[in-house]
Amino acid sequence: MSTANLPGELNPSPRLLLGPGPSEAHPRVLKAMTTPLLGHLDPEFVVMMSETQQMLRQVFKTQNPLTFAVSGTGMAGMECMVVNLIEPGDPMVVAVKGYFGGRMAEIARRAGAKTTVIEAPWGDVFDLNVLRDTLKKVKPKVLGIVHAETSTGALQPMEELGKLCHEQGVLLAVDTVTSLACVPLEVDAWELDAVFSGTQKGLGCPPGLAPITFSPRAMEIIRNRKTKVQSWYLDMSEVMKYWGEERFYHHTAPISSVYALREGLRVVLEEGLPARFARHRLHHLALKAGIHAMGLSYLTKEQCQLPQLNAIRIPDGIEDMKVRKRLVSDFGIEVGGGLGDFKGKAWRIGLMGYGARASSVFAVLSALERCLQQEGYSLKPGASAAAAQSVYANS
Amino acid sequence: MSTANLPGELNPSPRLLLGPGPSEAHPRVLKAMTTPLLGHLDPEFVVMMSETQQMLRQVFKTQNPLTFAVSGTGMAGMECMVVNLIEPGDPMVVAVKGYFGGRMAEIARRAGAKTTVIEAPWGDVFDLNVLRDTLKKVKPKVLGIVHAETSTGALQPMEELGKLCHEQGVLLAVDTVTSLACVPLEVDAWELDAVFSGTQKGLGCPPGLAPITFSPRAMEIIRNRKTKVQSWYLDMSEVMKYWGEERFYHHTAPISSVYALREGLRVVLEEGLPARFARHRLHHLALKAGIHAMGLSYLTKEQCQLPQLNAIRIPDGIEDMKVRKRLVSDFGIEVGGGLGDFKGKAWRIGLMGYGARASSVFAVLSALERCLQQEGYSLKPGASAAAAQSVYANS
Repeated sequence: MSTANLPGELNPSPRLLLGPGPSEAHPRVLKAMTTPLLGHLDPEFVVMMSETQQMLRQVFKTQNPLTFAVSGTGMAGMECMVVNLIEPGDPMVVAVKGYFGGRMAEIARRAGAKTTVIEAPWGDVFDLNVLRDTLKKVKPKVLGIVHAETSTGALQPMEELGKLCHEQGVLLAVDTVTSLACVPLEVDAWELDAVFSGTQKGLGCPPGLAPITFSPRAMEIIRNRKTKVQSWYLDMSEVMKYWGEERFYHHTAPISSVYALREGLRVVLEEGLPARFARHRLHHLALKAGIHAMGLSYLTKEQCQLPQLNAIRIPDGIEDMKVRKRLVSDFGIEVGGGLGDFKGKAWRIGLMGYGARASSVFAVLSALERCLQQEGYSLKPGASAAAAQSVYANS
Repeated sequence: MSTANLPGELNPSPRLLLGPGPSEAHPRVLKAMTTPLLGHLDPEFVVMMSETQQMLRQVFKTQNPLTFAVSGTGMAGMECMVVNLIEPGDPMVVAVKGYFGGRMAEIARRAGAKTTVIEAPWGDVFDLNVLRDTLKKVKPKVLGIVHAETSTGALQPMEELGKLCHEQGVLLAVDTVTSLACVPLEVDAWELDAVFSGTQKGLGCPPGLAPITFSPRAMEIIRNRKTKVQSWYLDMSEVMKYWGEERFYHHTAPISSVYALREGLRVVLEEGLPARFARHRLHHLALKAGIHAMGLSYLTKEQCQLPQLNAIRIPDGIEDMKVRKRLVSDFGIEVGGGLGDFKGKAWRIGLMGYGARASSVFAVLSALERCLQQEGYSLKPGASAAAAQSVYANS
């Protein structure tokens, strides 16, 4: 192939990323990635690793020594969490209320777990009593559950669940991909044993790393395994020689992604977690006011709606893809479609991290109004903007 | 933690990365990573994925449709290659002549392979007859071997090995982490069935992705598996729904890393592979002349020395860490130490991708001379620079 046939310079169209993730990366994070590489064992890089781990502990609200970032995307974090806790034949309960719970069950099965799935309707969450009864009956080693279900926009209450699990001698493993740095999460206070997340949502970084933390209780289980973890790449006992005190070579860390995460965490902690949660809440309320003003509704139950991920019911007679394609082509705005039970039924509007700001809310409301009108949906142009403005005015 | 206690701005010291990798990222690659994110299913991103795949095929010299980049570092690529080809109980031969061959054997065992290890001395490579005899005896499903052994700087001749394997009905799985885009590699012409690499060496990108390619023969084996791949994250039959024609969501691709890889591949193909190989060869010869001029020698056998990774014997009485630490502290130059059998015995000098240039060679030779002098090693200052210059003068 001659040089003339090579693809051209990287030149994507402008996009406002308001889907389920990736969210827009913070400009400071993108800038950090231009920093020339250090070696993965350079003393200066090792300091950066420690700083990143310390900031991750602050964002996770934990003292867990074993807190770091898996060198893969969020789903590598999920697999890492499961394969380290589970040995072949171990019983695991997975609480499924959407797409990502289902995925955890699939990963558990491949890890050789005797997997029991319990289900709640999509858009709803689990009642603590149901979970308690299941644990009493099944007596699993691990309960796996999703904190913020990205596919449905539902927030699972977690405050009491750790205590409940530990009363039954069960480990609690939690997916916080869409919750971390958007809504309160208290790994230690809530007694969570294994928790993973992703960088491309609340943290405002590109996808590519999976922050993860294991409680001393989980560590003990991992230390006493009788079998080796099936994955060498994700084996905590190996990885921790690198991310732990030894700093012994395991694999070559993705240097630029660690730079990005370190900068993203600095941005998060400069804002402060309470202010960050309040900001997500505010823009969610403004978006919701606008959504209601155009006559649309949420698919997620009112009492468990996530601020950062809004699952909107697609009105009857409106074609999902047509609207979403037009949002991209005419306005450069990406929102998500539905997965699984919500396929064709939901638009998922993400207001995460850097993307949770008034300009995002105004833009997506007006663009959506315009697209719906073009599809013959009856609404009063500008009503959603007015409703959102009024939320900001009263905040 | 108050904002005042947060780590400061990212500000690493300047480094010349001349170790076994990561090598310096090309400036155009770093710049590409500042590009704002697209969604992982954005039509424009999908085009970039296809372009990246097409350029990877050119660099791998293959027509394999299943050619893409695993969302993890090189070692995730190794695990991906092995766990897709192997089902529990399958016999696999791993040819070990250094650290990374040993690692492949460990991954094979965890995948449930009946693993037979054959060994060649560190710094040497395998004779084809030895490999043929082993395959005849063991009759494995897969032979795993490292093309360019990063721990020893040895290049395994591969031209005839694919044919030999196929005569025995064996699949050939190859680690090309340190060879890709540095020395000739012909996936199709050499009949290689599964080949993975990393981005942080010859391709001049940050670490974080593992380019990989599977032959139609390997695909057939994967399609006919009786058991599911133990890793959901690395399961080709799942991943290919995303990287294949369907572009169906599997995991969120590391967008910025794909941007980086796409740009790195453009840089490689603009230079052209033959010119790139010649450049690596030239700077290797200059380095080698300088190394010999200061009275040092190679640990790798003469006939199998890699141009891009030079394993230098540490002279008697010289302390490994003292010299390497001084290279970093006084001159900002990183070279690698030894692993395994070569621990404390070797310095590994990488001249890879963007790092393979005369200024690297001059800098590392003079800095090493200075450090050796400080340790009381007798040499003639400037002799190595003169020797390298003379190679360039005659090129």
